[in-house]
Amino acid sequence: MTRDVFYPNMSPMIKKTTIINVGIAGATGLAGEELIKVLLRHPGARITHLCAKIDKPRHIAEIFPVLKERLDLICYQPNAKELASKCDLVFLALPHTVSMTMAPALLKAGKSVIDLSADYRLSDPRVYRKFYNVEHKDKKNLKRAVYGLCELNRNKIRSAGFIANPGCYPTAAILAIAPLAALNLVEPSSVIIDAKSGASGAGRKVSEALLFGEVNEDFKAYKVNVHQHMPEISQELSGLAGERVKVIFIPHLLPLERGILETIYAKKGKRLLSKKRDLHKLYKNFYKKEPFIRIKEEGEFPRLKDVSRTNFCDIAIKDEGDSIIIIAAIDNLLKGAAGQAVQNMNIMYNLPEHLGLL
Amino acid sequence: MTRDVFYPNMSPMIKKTTIINVGIAGATGLAGEELIKVLLRHPGARITHLCAKIDKPRHIAEIFPVLKERLDLICYQPNAKELASKCDLVFLALPHTVSMTMAPALLKAGKSVIDLSADYRLSDPRVYRKFYNVEHKDKKNLKRAVYGLCELNRNKIRSAGFIANPGCYPTAAILAIAPLAALNLVEPSSVIIDAKSGASGAGRKVSEALLFGEVNEDFKAYKVNVHQHMPEISQELSGLAGERVKVIFIPHLLPLERGILETIYAKKGKRLLSKKRDLHKLYKNFYKKEPFIRIKEEGEFPRLKDVSRTNFCDIAIKDEGDSIIIIAAIDNLLKGAAGQAVQNMNIMYNLPEHLGLL
Amino acid sequence: MTRDVFYPNMSPMIKKTTIINVGIAGATGLAGEELIKVLLRHPGARITHLCAKIDKPRHIAEIFPVLKERLDLICYQPNAKELASKCDLVFLALPHTVSMTMAPALLKAGKSVIDLSADYRLSDPRVYRKFYNVEHKDKKNLKRAVYGLCELNRNKIRSAGFIANPGCYPTAAILAIAPLAALNLVEPSSVIIDAKSGASGAGRKVSEALLFGEVNEDFKAYKVNVHQHMPEISQELSGLAGERVKVIFIPHLLPLERGILETIYAKKGKRLLSKKRDLHKLYKNFYKKEPFIRIKEEGEFPRLKDVSRTNFCDIAIKDEGDSIIIIAAIDNLLKGAAGQAVQNMNIMYNLPEHLGLL
Amino acid sequence: MTRDVFYPNMSPMIKKTTIINVGIAGATGLAGEELIKVLLRHPGARITHLCAKIDKPRHIAEIFPVLKERLDLICYQPNAKELASKCDLVFLALPHTVSMTMAPALLKAGKSVIDLSADYRLSDPRVYRKFYNVEHKDKKNLKRAVYGLCELNRNKIRSAGFIANPGCYPTAAILAIAPLAALNLVEPSSVIIDAKSGASGAGRKVSEALLFGEVNEDFKAYKVNVHQHMPEISQELSGLAGERVKVIFIPHLLPLERGILETIYAKKGKRLLSKKRDLHKLYKNFYKKEPFIRIKEEGEFPRLKDVSRTNFCDIAIKDEGDSIIIIAAIDNLLKGAAGQAVQNMNIMYNLPEHLGLL
Repeated sequence: MTRDVFYPNMSPMIKKTTIINVGIAGATGLAGEELIKVLLRHPGARITHLCAKIDKPRHIAEIFPVLKERLDLICYQPNAKELASKCDLVFLALPHTVSMTMAPALLKAGKSVIDLSADYRLSDPRVYRKFYNVEHKDKKNLKRAVYGLCELNRNKIRSAGFIANPGCYPTAAILAIAPLAALNLVEPSSVIIDAKSGASGAGRKVSEALLFGEVNEDFKAYKVNVHQHMPEISQELSGLAGERVKVIFIPHLLPLERGILETIYAKKGKRLLSKKRDLHKLYKNFYKKEPFIRIKEEGEFPRLKDVSRTNFCDIAIKDEGDSIIIIAAIDNLLKGAAGQAVQNMNIMYNLPEHLGLL
Repeated sequence: MTRDVFYPNMSPMIKKTTIINVGIAGATGLAGEELIKVLLRHPGARITHLCAKIDKPRHIAEIFPVLKERLDLICYQPNAKELASKCDLVFLALPHTVSMTMAPALLKAGKSVIDLSADYRLSDPRVYRKFYNVEHKDKKNLKRAVYGLCELNRNKIRSAGFIANPGCYPTAAILAIAPLAALNLVEPSSVIIDAKSGASGAGRKVSEALLFGEVNEDFKAYKVNVHQHMPEISQELSGLAGERVKVIFIPHLLPLERGILETIYAKKGKRLLSKKRDLHKLYKNFYKKEPFIRIKEEGEFPRLKDVSRTNFCDIAIKDEGDSIIIIAAIDNLLKGAAGQAVQNMNIMYNLPEHLGLL
Repeated sequence: MTRDVFYPNMSPMIKKTTIINVGIAGATGLAGEELIKVLLRHPGARITHLCAKIDKPRHIAEIFPVLKERLDLICYQPNAKELASKCDLVFLALPHTVSMTMAPALLKAGKSVIDLSADYRLSDPRVYRKFYNVEHKDKKNLKRAVYGLCELNRNKIRSAGFIANPGCYPTAAILAIAPLAALNLVEPSSVIIDAKSGASGAGRKVSEALLFGEVNEDFKAYKVNVHQHMPEISQELSGLAGERVKVIFIPHLLPLERGILETIYAKKGKRLLSKKRDLHKLYKNFYKKEPFIRIKEEGEFPRLKDVSRTNFCDIAIKDEGDSIIIIAAIDNLLKGAAGQAVQNMNIMYNLPEHLGLL
Repeated sequence: MTRDVFYPNMSPMIKKTTIINVGIAGATGLAGEELIKVLLRHPGARITHLCAKIDKPRHIAEIFPVLKERLDLICYQPNAKELASKCDLVFLALPHTVSMTMAPALLKAGKSVIDLSADYRLSDPRVYRKFYNVEHKDKKNLKRAVYGLCELNRNKIRSAGFIANPGCYPTAAILAIAPLAALNLVEPSSVIIDAKSGASGAGRKVSEALLFGEVNEDFKAYKVNVHQHMPEISQELSGLAGERVKVIFIPHLLPLERGILETIYAKKGKRLLSKKRDLHKLYKNFYKKEPFIRIKEEGEFPRLKDVSRTNFCDIAIKDEGDSIIIIAAIDNLLKGAAGQAVQNMNIMYNLPEHLGLL
């Protein structure tokens, strides 16, 4: 046998005519690396171009030895024209503020774009400026971007050419609270999100705070109620509820690599206090057709191990007097980033939603 | 030089006449092991007897090779009479339900006892039965036991002969909320405690759930709002507040060895809503003479690394609109168990409170 | 969309006629769980039966919540007849001594069997008795079993009906030393294997030594030069060399989940001392057609992260005076167990060797 | 009570007249931090000056919140004159090449100096240049420095004013091999040291390779047979043996914080092959008066947990045909750095050797 069978591009099992040619900008970051791994297992997509902020073009297997013998591509310096010429769809796995310098040219060239940065998630550019400390540079496309939380926006995503892929914390939080928010069952200003994330949430940033010696055997809160994901959560929950939803949001750093678990507390609203409802059944029903949402049985609760390296979001709900406790868990790099991005691609291209994701 | 200088019993720097002879029942558990290590550094105490539920007497260094050349004692099977004859003070580092079979004889023999189990913490035996699923067998001494949270009960401890050493979660929670509860500044039924503990919180129990492969790279909630430490927290906070304080308490398991961090949410009470107060100053003041409480500066928050392997409790408080966020961190085996036990001993014997604990 | 697309059994992309029906005995162990995950991604295999030593039949997703919505099968108590009737091929992911009670009936029924236990790896039953402390009960089939180290025995495997899947430590060791042993380039009694394995190497055994509190932040050697994998390594290397090869083998336990890294030391043999050879080129050449062996460039060395959750074996070789240093790394649950087992299946069924493994 | 009892300076139990005033240069590094913690427990030493390469003077508790309420000192920018005026003895916990710019002035001022860097460990400046890529700038004092491996050089240390504190890897390696080397029992060129260290061995260097995401769940060899500690090991073993001892030395990086474990292989020399000796007894005897060396019983082996956060070196020896296997473990920050430095101080000042170290 020869090695060539390894490259999915040459897999005999896929009709080449229907394959999507995809590019990844920001291929050397954690989300970019994860996208590569997911797409290598995707029978309907072929990676045709990689780029990232690097000194000179390098083979991707030189950057990620784990990809040796699996992907035979050079990673180039970013060039929107090159990307547009090689790809049908481009994933932007770039830092915020960089995506909005690259997206316009790709969109103008008629390419589909899925942006994993925060640049197009907040519909109000003033909120963006407040939380990211920079003026938004592409307000035109900001209006066009569809917030790609697959379970809630599937119809819009289907016909979209430009997706703002949700943040990791917001993905778990919004999915966890959506059934209650959509039916106005909780006090809109009572929601407390106690969030815990593994270290990969910070990407591949080289800083003292992320050294092994600092994270290992430690645990702490950070950006206490000032995290930039807070307005994203409020925006989407407010949209669902039709009224302003304000949340308290405290993220914590876990000494592990992957996963987000959020323990969420809310006070029942009048509607719910006056009329008892089976919340577990409500959740089961709300998400009954969703391939990637699993509602835990009563008395069972999510754990990171069950969602780690999957695209699933596990959710438990507990009715507790006049309070409600919801616990949700996802893999921050998959359902919270690269996995949901590919799920969005699958929806946009009318492919089975789980392709590449199981 | 000879090795004998190693045994603190023979240290030339301590006047032998004033040394406390202490025994440890349950020496092979995690709290027992930690007690040994703390006491080996204590210039005013000498370990004179060790016992635990074991098949036959064994040298303690055979059980804990880390103690080789540091402690030359046999660990025996439990025998209250033997303990009473060898010790002035006995630490019971036993599982709950076992302590209450051993304490009565020691107390009757006039010995000081510090019980690290839960057996004498809950003043109402009906609550004990509800949460520990067993009838209390020593109601007489239950009345006598002083709840040994040093910072709040120092005066009672000073003259006590019998201490119920607080649980690990309650120690952090009560210290974190006490200043507000004592002044009735929060809504008594609004307190939410989102607690996270390292794996040593479960002791040395051999169970599948505590295998390395289960805990490592995982994170989860457990005993969601049904944990046996919940009534202990309510009992003490209610005592401080002079009214019933009900808490929501969700413990989580961290993939690390030592430490508890609790993120606590409360709604301001009427008194506080009507009159603004500087909560940070209030906390600084409340604990200003305390050797083991450190209030973080505003904008700074506790982390486990700063309290790990110390007897400190680090606390941060944040005023957040009509809510208050408090974050507290301790080492569960020290301030949450063996450290606080020795702090109690120091208070009982009128020694400098930090002896052995720095 | 509906959920059914999730079950690979119903994937529209696979021609059902050519699908292999496979069963897994020992489905609840670590190797069994890994086999399930690999096979769920395999387009040419369908899991049709699961069994394990359990109290009563249970849905596999109840045992492994991570499999919820991914595999809709009951796990039964072991029954060879049932397995034979439902499957073309059976993976035995059983403890040693149990496999040899189950394999005979399956083989008699004409089924293909891949045994992941140690029962059929040692050709000499006296060696088996010595290292596993039990008499071999199926010497007949022992003779028939092919040692399934894919890279070295591919031709025999192709026509085999019964595979003894290699141990995790031996897989890395034999692949690392094979090019030298086959050409008699090292002193046969000079080989030292300093091996380090993650905790999953011990399976799901509930013992104090494998508790999180024992493994985390610890590192130690164990079974120092008496490990049961030692004779397996000697047997295979001796076969390659045509003379008895004796190894020193010291395994160590790493505080991580997955992966084996072996640092191997050998003295050059006369043949090599008398005539210089480019060992790096030799290794590159020896494995040049192998899809799962990656020889590191000179000056680069394997790390666990690069092979973790893959079926690759990364190998580096360094010429060091009259010594040779070889470093090899694999994922113990994949190339060291379930991955290699599926690679064996692919060879047996003449499928592309990487199916399900990328 | 008031807080002041916390500062060891004011402890009532120590006669102030005999207290050593010590300074630490490089207080913000890992070894510096560890020195502070050890010295805070030392009844005969008082930290009087801290300095490090920082932007401006800062309170040490601001740099290390763990020290809040424990040490009330400012950390200044380095100034040899200031150090000399405030201290009797100075610990240099500086990067190599920096120590040799600071030591001369301190020595000239008549101060005792214990240097934890590599600058004065290698007696041959040509070897220093080769392994540290820089010319030695203080050859005069290099001659004067005593290699501070306490167990082997105690007499020289007692009268020394200048100590080169051994490296972490060499401490374990030399202690492990010394009994054999001193008696010429092994082939001098047969020694192989397979060393594994926790991440704190690299200090507080901010580099991508030391990020949590890189070290956690990974294991790898590095600086394969080119590590700068190799010549230090050879130098000392050669000195003991009276002949050149060449070692193969392969360090590996463990995903844990503290500890070094070395598995060492050697071939028996002629003297040993011709006459059987009980090696276990030999080791017991060689170290029989040593307070910090513990020889494991036969069949027992060191583990990091038993030496972690102690100054002990645990050693096991196994006679294996014509080979010998030795396993040694230390805490790299204590016996491998700050602990041994304080042990050296104790010897220099004729104090009980264990002071501050138990």
